[in-house]
Amino acid sequence: MAQKAVFYHAGCPVCVDAEQRLAHALDPASYTVEIVHLGNDRGRIAEAEAAGVKSVPALVLDGLPYHINFGASLADVKGAG
Amino acid sequence: MAQKAVFYHAGCPVCVDAEQRLAHALDPASYTVEIVHLGNDRGRIAEAEAAGVKSVPALVLDGLPYHINFGASLADVKGAG
Repeated sequence: MAQKAVFYHAGCPVCVDAEQRLAHALDPASYTVEIVHLGNDRGRIAEAEAAGVKSVPALVLDGLPYHINFGASLADVKGAG
Repeated sequence: MAQKAVFYHAGCPVCVDAEQRLAHALDPASYTVEIVHLGNDRGRIAEAEAAGVKSVPALVLDGLPYHINFGASLADVKGAG
């Protein structure tokens, strides 16, 4: 059964590229990917932090954070609000 | 048709986890993933560098590098030889 994966981003160029290239390349048989734009959906920043996300773009798989390259720190995303 | 993806690592714990969780989770319809251990296959370090890989673990998709978390810098991998 597909597990849930969450891709957190903030609309930055690095984020958009990682989303298109990597988040959408996960095997749909393994993961159902939810895309969350933390700039627009600020209520979910705490959830990302709790999962260990330090920067975006990041993918949370099975509750573990995988930071993909570096677009912006979570502190920057919070500060931009 | 599936494109080729290369996952470069160096056997570090962060690498092994990323390989199991992420490299093997790519959609086989999109990507055929080759796993390269740069510590054992040092002849391919130059190829990783040319693709823009700065640290491992990293995934190269369509010729572009995606660094996943941080295990070791490529300089460290080279120095360990």
